[in-house]
Amino acid sequence: MVVALKNTKINIDFNRLKATLEKSSSIGTIPGDGLRRLALSEEDKKMRDIFLNWMKEAGLEIRIDEFGNMFGRRAGKANLTPIMIGSHLDTQPNGGRFDGVLGVLSALEVIRTLNDQQIETNRPIEVVNFTNEEGARFEPALLGSGGATGIFSLDYVYSRTDVDGKTFESELEHIGYKGEKQSPLSDIHAFIELHIEQGPILENEKKEIGVVQGVKGMTWMELKVTGSGGHAGPTPMNLRKDALMKVANMIVYLEEKAKQWDEDLSVTIGRMHLSPGVVNCIPEEVVFSLDIRHVKDEIREQFIKETKQDLQDMCEQEQFQLSITDLWQVSTTHFHSKIIKKIKEVAKKLDLSTRELYSGAGHDAKYMSDICPTGMIFLPSIGGISHVEHELSLDSDIENAANVLLHTVLKLDNEQIK
Amino acid sequence: MVVALKNTKINIDFNRLKATLEKSSSIGTIPGDGLRRLALSEEDKKMRDIFLNWMKEAGLEIRIDEFGNMFGRRAGKANLTPIMIGSHLDTQPNGGRFDGVLGVLSALEVIRTLNDQQIETNRPIEVVNFTNEEGARFEPALLGSGGATGIFSLDYVYSRTDVDGKTFESELEHIGYKGEKQSPLSDIHAFIELHIEQGPILENEKKEIGVVQGVKGMTWMELKVTGSGGHAGPTPMNLRKDALMKVANMIVYLEEKAKQWDEDLSVTIGRMHLSPGVVNCIPEEVVFSLDIRHVKDEIREQFIKETKQDLQDMCEQEQFQLSITDLWQVSTTHFHSKIIKKIKEVAKKLDLSTRELYSGAGHDAKYMSDICPTGMIFLPSIGGISHVEHELSLDSDIENAANVLLHTVLKLDNEQIK
Repeated sequence: MVVALKNTKINIDFNRLKATLEKSSSIGTIPGDGLRRLALSEEDKKMRDIFLNWMKEAGLEIRIDEFGNMFGRRAGKANLTPIMIGSHLDTQPNGGRFDGVLGVLSALEVIRTLNDQQIETNRPIEVVNFTNEEGARFEPALLGSGGATGIFSLDYVYSRTDVDGKTFESELEHIGYKGEKQSPLSDIHAFIELHIEQGPILENEKKEIGVVQGVKGMTWMELKVTGSGGHAGPTPMNLRKDALMKVANMIVYLEEKAKQWDEDLSVTIGRMHLSPGVVNCIPEEVVFSLDIRHVKDEIREQFIKETKQDLQDMCEQEQFQLSITDLWQVSTTHFHSKIIKKIKEVAKKLDLSTRELYSGAGHDAKYMSDICPTGMIFLPSIGGISHVEHELSLDSDIENAANVLLHTVLKLDNEQIK
Repeated sequence: MVVALKNTKINIDFNRLKATLEKSSSIGTIPGDGLRRLALSEEDKKMRDIFLNWMKEAGLEIRIDEFGNMFGRRAGKANLTPIMIGSHLDTQPNGGRFDGVLGVLSALEVIRTLNDQQIETNRPIEVVNFTNEEGARFEPALLGSGGATGIFSLDYVYSRTDVDGKTFESELEHIGYKGEKQSPLSDIHAFIELHIEQGPILENEKKEIGVVQGVKGMTWMELKVTGSGGHAGPTPMNLRKDALMKVANMIVYLEEKAKQWDEDLSVTIGRMHLSPGVVNCIPEEVVFSLDIRHVKDEIREQFIKETKQDLQDMCEQEQFQLSITDLWQVSTTHFHSKIIKKIKEVAKKLDLSTRELYSGAGHDAKYMSDICPTGMIFLPSIGGISHVEHELSLDSDIENAANVLLHTVLKLDNEQIK
């Protein structure tokens, strides 16, 4: 037996990992090198069947839970709680090949490497594919990990419907992945999720590994600005109350305020609707979404408080009506400090440059951190882009991150979390 | 016989006009006091049947042309070309009770007044209801007057389709208003259209009558701004190329430039589409319409030229892509100076305050001015609003404008246009 931790020369087999990625990239392929593999679809079933087979070939003990989450356990020497690694195999409707997928397939590659090297760990190592992480077919996101960790009830998850009115439960049964009740998960020693950054920070700062501190809190709101409509021709501009002109000024204000506030704060207006929405009609009403994120909940809340007041004042000055609806908000999740520290040490030992950062997006690790010490390993995304077909990461970055995952698992197996 | 022009005490019967307006307001009524009487619909047919009957009762000689335009002629003493008055009875999907309707029913009221007063005019007086002025069901607008004046060919008009794929021709036949070929119209002495202003200028300046100089030219464009998309969470604002943030800055620039340029210039962005249009996605692409109007073609063109360059520069500076598609443009129409003068003289004689102004919206008079001396009489719109259910004008303003129409007809009948 090899004592792994003392030998950083143990590496994952990148060609093998690449081959599994290529196989995955052939299931649900869409133009532009992307994937459409919506949760519980035929494509998802096809990918699950392949993954199930790979887990079997790797000698893992397989469990499917009541949410369709797929677990594969490699036994350890001792009767200890397992180290869990993984992510999700479902994608956005116009998604890329790496988001989620890389976390699951790297976990499988860790297992295969341990097998190759005949490394017997102390603890069981368990890989996982969580169901419906994206929330693209069944809202909200993170249904599988939320169910497995007891955050969502079984009834709630089963009753979620897609746009065609099909329920999560019926579709889960339909693809044959409705397992036995096993949730909530307990007695997990640690959970590690490898994931692409989906942002540009690592690439921009030329760092190889992102050591994730947690998941940023966020607030979603919907704003409605009402002015006066009318025909575009007969009304001079100085007599108009054009809701879009007002909203444009509000957006410029929001952008400037956010940029001045601090560099971590982000404001996104992703959705906008004009009424009546006709070329030659002055917009009477504009409704738009507001997504505000900051790593510190109190700073986000302070920004929102000031902003709401300022926007209200901007509208009142010129007799526009503004109504603000709070859609939802989540607080910042902080991952386990000792896990963060271990990931950083591993990267350093492998001579990889690191950057500590918070994830702006949600991940299964967010819910897992409620039940066990959790951490995430990020690798650079080319151009910082994700949730699009041409999402891409460099081979070298994928290999590095998978090796960090392997050695983090070995370190967690050999050291206490303290 | 009364020599009308010398007696400004001849007035239309406002109560009778009001009663016809109320009857019209009961055909195609929608909540909010509005009308939905789309061209060639069942509601349009019902209104046409009523109007046909009113014309018969008034002793008019009726013609329906191949476009469904309805004409009713009151004979004159001499064998002279007729004075034509009228507008349209169709409405927007969520239209008001006055746009177009008032022009047709005031014309009918002029005929009824001439009958009451037993005034025998020198020239025939002809009332008209033009088909599909709004363009709300069959695009483009002004199909009836455009057909009658020879601007649109019969094939073009007949082949226009509504959203359900039904053709203008089949729907015209279906409601029983497909007449004999009579176009293009010729030998019209003058055309006068009474219409609500649809803008706030008269109300704002407390003027009773708008003496319309013509119809403003306009340009429609579509702009597409492309930045970089991505997930809203992971990308810091200083590394984004958010297409909407760029567009907001462009709109603020457009608003300021237009207001500084001169008070006649107007810019309207009525339609906007964000891609992907998801709350937590940075807008990668924003497409929006631009409606630019000015009474002077060369000023509008100069504004557009400068603006295109400035917007292009704004985008290039930060590596956004901007593409601009010209959708269409029309030059300014100038009504006949002598007709304008006569309307003004009539209003003065009736002790009504006037304001010369250009129409920002298109009207049947626009195409009629291609074939005969043409003018328009505007009355104030409350709040300047139109193309909405709660479009409204004061009774006193309606009465004044109808009297100006009556006396303009009598003046044109008694004086030469020179």
